[in-house]
Amino acid sequence: MTAESRDRAAAAAAPGGRKAGRRPGGRATRDEIHEAARSAFAEHGYDRATIRDIASRARVDPALVIHYFGSKEQLFSAALRLPVEPAEVLARVRAQAPDEMGPALVRAFLSVWEPEETRTPLIATLRSAMTNETAMTLVREHLDRRIFGPITAALQSDDAELRATLIGSQLIGLAMMRYIAGVQPLASASVEQLVAAVGPTVQRYITGDLGGAADA
Amino acid sequence: MTAESRDRAAAAAAPGGRKAGRRPGGRATRDEIHEAARSAFAEHGYDRATIRDIASRARVDPALVIHYFGSKEQLFSAALRLPVEPAEVLARVRAQAPDEMGPALVRAFLSVWEPEETRTPLIATLRSAMTNETAMTLVREHLDRRIFGPITAALQSDDAELRATLIGSQLIGLAMMRYIAGVQPLASASVEQLVAAVGPTVQRYITGDLGGAADA
Repeated sequence: MTAESRDRAAAAAAPGGRKAGRRPGGRATRDEIHEAARSAFAEHGYDRATIRDIASRARVDPALVIHYFGSKEQLFSAALRLPVEPAEVLARVRAQAPDEMGPALVRAFLSVWEPEETRTPLIATLRSAMTNETAMTLVREHLDRRIFGPITAALQSDDAELRATLIGSQLIGLAMMRYIAGVQPLASASVEQLVAAVGPTVQRYITGDLGGAADA
Repeated sequence: MTAESRDRAAAAAAPGGRKAGRRPGGRATRDEIHEAARSAFAEHGYDRATIRDIASRARVDPALVIHYFGSKEQLFSAALRLPVEPAEVLARVRAQAPDEMGPALVRAFLSVWEPEETRTPLIATLRSAMTNETAMTLVREHLDRRIFGPITAALQSDDAELRATLIGSQLIGLAMMRYIAGVQPLASASVEQLVAAVGPTVQRYITGDLGGAADA
């Protein structure tokens, strides 16, 4: 019996409502551990989040957390996965005309950050990465593989990697100021205001002249 | 006798070399508590840095830390102060021709982040702000008063506050990616490459058209 078929069998057998106390595994439990991990990383950061605390939040035995996810490191990697697929977001951006990609990318980025259910795990990720070297390494690998890699491949220019990370620098700074620091008036600006203000910056990093930055 | 004249008198009377064990107050000790606070905030973040730990690093009694700085909150505020004065950096930028201010501001910003002795406390500040609401409030107040306020005043336009925070978003994102995440090739790019690549972004936020962002 594979772990997945066991999950499905357990989920089919599980009663509908939540019960107090520790429960056996199942698809719902796995998702709940995932959610518990996200809220623990969000609240305490990678360093202070513990398997024990995550298990207690999900009301399961710590051994079950290890059974499903293996380690705190793997649990954090799982928590990095968003409800939205970066590849799909980027595919929508690439469907735009070349000179519309900058504003489209800003709009797509903000559409991921605006809803609380994606913003909370993203803030948790940033917070953990800022305070723990292991978490930072995992985030950096994730960014390289899932975000900068596809953007670099799409740009198809010699300095594509520099361009991808310049885009990242503007977008991550925008998220920091708006969603984490809550600096005004950036925090209360409308999405359309930000697309108009920041879109041309990203457009220039995609297709513009970087002033010989690539040759230096 | 004021606190300052007492410091001076104590410093004048103090022997030159460092001694083991706890020592009485003095200018050197005050600076050493300041340094100890910075390294404690850098290592542990605001939440986990304690007065006791800071006192132990500076080899003084915790009561002396309280005597000089009052509270952990005030100690953090003191640690926010950099060896460079933001007003002086901004004055140098304002001495440039209007269409040179963007690149000049990027160069000035990087000149503060490049040396390790200013980078370390800046990273400590960001790390603390990311993980503690009190620290974030102190950082936000500090940014408003010392950085965004003067930039806003210098810009003298209706949407100056939005422009100042957009500049902040690009610069803080650049610092995050280059100095904290160490994302390549941004981390190893030369200062001049970055001035060429990012200068026009900041220039546009200073003097450019924000696409009606101010009216929306």
